[in-house]
This record gives sequence, structure tokens and C-alpha cells, in this order.
Amino acid sequence: MPINPTPYPTRFSDEEREALYRVIHARRDVRAGFRSDPIPAAVLRRVLDAAHHAGSVGFMQPWNFLVITSPESRERIHRIFQTENARAAAAYSGERRALYDRLKLEGILESGANLCITCDRERHGPDVLGRHTMRDTDVYSTCCAIQNLWLAARAEGLGVGWVSILDPAAVKRVLEIPESLELIAYLCIGYVDAFAEAPDLERAGWQRRLPLAAVAFQERWGVPLAEDNS
Amino acid sequence: MPINPTPYPTRFSDEEREALYRVIHARRDVRAGFRSDPIPAAVLRRVLDAAHHAGSVGFMQPWNFLVITSPESRERIHRIFQTENARAAAAYSGERRALYDRLKLEGILESGANLCITCDRERHGPDVLGRHTMRDTDVYSTCCAIQNLWLAARAEGLGVGWVSILDPAAVKRVLEIPESLELIAYLCIGYVDAFAEAPDLERAGWQRRLPLAAVAFQERWGVPLAEDNS
Repeated sequence: MPINPTPYPTRFSDEEREALYRVIHARRDVRAGFRSDPIPAAVLRRVLDAAHHAGSVGFMQPWNFLVITSPESRERIHRIFQTENARAAAAYSGERRALYDRLKLEGILESGANLCITCDRERHGPDVLGRHTMRDTDVYSTCCAIQNLWLAARAEGLGVGWVSILDPAAVKRVLEIPESLELIAYLCIGYVDAFAEAPDLERAGWQRRLPLAAVAFQERWGVPLAEDNS
Repeated sequence: MPINPTPYPTRFSDEEREALYRVIHARRDVRAGFRSDPIPAAVLRRVLDAAHHAGSVGFMQPWNFLVITSPESRERIHRIFQTENARAAAAYSGERRALYDRLKLEGILESGANLCITCDRERHGPDVLGRHTMRDTDVYSTCCAIQNLWLAARAEGLGVGWVSILDPAAVKRVLEIPESLELIAYLCIGYVDAFAEAPDLERAGWQRRLPLAAVAFQERWGVPLAEDNS
């Protein structure tokens, strides 16, 4: 199977690499400040096509993307959020609870569109290459697709917010998604006037960014990453 | 919580968007053709830092990245792969089995480095914001980090191959990873002379890329995405 090389460069130019890193660092999980302008179909298609070009176990492409704009569906999903959020809030008390209640956690009604992303765990049958040993790799692939989508959206000026405070079974019923499919993500996506400099939860004092050294090791668990040698 | 806007543009320039899409489309799951040149620490750090800038549920940042170069560890991981691959191959018969046996599925020994990526499901305690309703969102966040890493690596000229034909518990024992952590991905990463134009499994006739229309719907399950209106 000799390689027919890609027309893209093996190593991208400094400008192209810089662009990628800029998008990665500028990406935010957006919950506030959505404008309601519709997303042009061509833009949406580019963003979904970026998602569809993620890697997947056994080239399974197990994902589905459902775009929702109808106010009726959104109202119903929003009510599911409200119920689940009331439950989630009950886990906190005191100052943490007060802070929680001040956070805006979703833009279901006001964003340009909602996106429901599912994983078809049966696609291409039971013998998907590479999935005998690690069954959840199909779900992992679907999440890789979501990150592609998130970056493409950011580059297009579209904010994306991942709403996990939902009952997946209830959402699937509203959207008539077959029961056999696993709901992985419910996203709000839409134009925004600005992206925040830092993540909302960092700005609100909820949680800080960890230093890279706290999460990256070398050779054995707990051994710090080598310093720059180049 | 007024927004302190990011210094990055709201919508990126045509050139920057084009660079992102080019990297997304040029990314491959690489299993063959790795060169053994070491990866400079500064490059590795950029790539890991890109991963660390993925979104995460409740800003949990649940990931850890373990870089492995030692030949001894790689030999041991490679033996785990061989055992599991013999089992996986037994699922196929006839022509499909013959094709399977011809596929090269990993570059554990010859790539510049291996990377083991885990998810710490207990990080920041039991009450991570947004995780009461969907517990696996920490794993999903870790997969988003992996896609960032994959794209950054591609831009740097580094191939990445995800090896899922492994016994995660056995790999964790070799690398002395605490039992409480979940192994999400084992990656081979390294410089390559060229990237293939199409995915290996497509080139080998194993599986074809689905049309976007087969996986993207609008409003209700099964309703085709609207045509371009812009």
C-alpha cells in the first residue's frame, strides 16, 4: 500500500501553524452573548464537514449531527435544562451555591442554532477494526469530531457552548432520535459580538487553569516533562 | 461578569480559516512510515499545550499526558499489542482476514515517542459543574484534548496514530499509572516523510468515507440538511 502523498505540506508554514494555535487558544465555551442571526447554510456545512473529518476507530465515522433551529424544540429542550439545573444546583451550598446561581450556563433559546451530536454504536456492524479491545473508542471518535467542529466554528466567529445539564433520554424523545443512538453532546452555536479572554469559569473564580506541568509527565507517572532541549 | 474581550479576532481572516481547514483535512491516523528522529522538547510542549487548551466540563481539565520514549517500555507495550491483535484478528475470516493481516496497525517501536492519555475522573472532587447529569463528560473532554493534539501535531509535521488494540489495564501496569485513572488513548507520535492523501483504511478498501448528507440532519432525525442559502 504505497503512500500517495497528500497535496498538503508535510510540515505546515509558520503562518499556518500560528493560525491553528491561535484558533485553539481563542476557543471558548460560550454561554452568554449569543446573537440570533441565522447561520448561513454554507458556513454550517463547512463546520459540520470539519467535524466529519475527524479520525475515527476503524474509519467508523459513528457520528450524527442534528441541527435544530425551531423555537418549539428549543423551548422543550430548555425546559429539560431548567429541571436538571435545579437538581444540579442543589449539590452546592453557601457561597458556592450563590455563585452557581449567578452563572449563565446555556444559550439554548437565543443562539443561532442548537446541535445535537449522537454516536451510532452499531454502525458498520459488530466487528469494527480496533474496537474489540476498547469498545468506547466510537464515543471517543465522536468527541474528536466535536473538537474539530468547535475550532472551525471559532474561526468562523461562531461561539459554541456545550450544555451537559440535560437528561439525554428526554432530549432524544423531543428530537425523535432513535433509542439505539447515544447522545454525546448538545451544543448551542451562533454568532457573538466578542469572545472572552479567559474561560467563563476562570473569570467567575470557579476554577483555575492548571499549569501544563501538573498534567504532563515523562516515561513514568509523576516524572516531570523534560525542559526544552531545542 | 462583563466580557474582557480576547485579543484574537472574533472572526478569523480568510487565510487563517483556510489554514485551520487545511490542517483538519490533512490530518491522518498514521501507522506506517514513522522516522525515529526525536521530537524536540519545545515542539512536544506546543503540541501538549494545544491539548491542554481544549474545553472541559466545569473547566475540570481531567486529562494527563504521559510521554514515553524508553525502548524497554515500548517493547512491553508492543507485546501487549501483539497478544490483543492476535485475538482481534480471529474475528475476521476469508478475504477480510487476509486484508486485516496485511494492515499495519501501529508504530509503537519506531515512532519518535508514544503518548498515553488518561482521564482522572475524580479531579476536583465529586461536584464538577455540568457533570451531575452526564457523568462521562470528563472522558469526552479528554477526547477533545486529543483532537487538539492531533491537529497541532499534523501542523508540526508529526504523524499521530491511535492504537486501540491494547489491554488498558496491562498498559497502565507497565507505565505505573494509578489504578483510579482511566486510560483513554495510546498514541504513537513522530516525524514522517509524507502523509497519505486518504485514510489508510480507505486506501486499503476496508471502509469508505460517508457523504456528509448521510450523517447530518435538520430539525428532526432523518430530515436532510438544508441546501446552501448563501
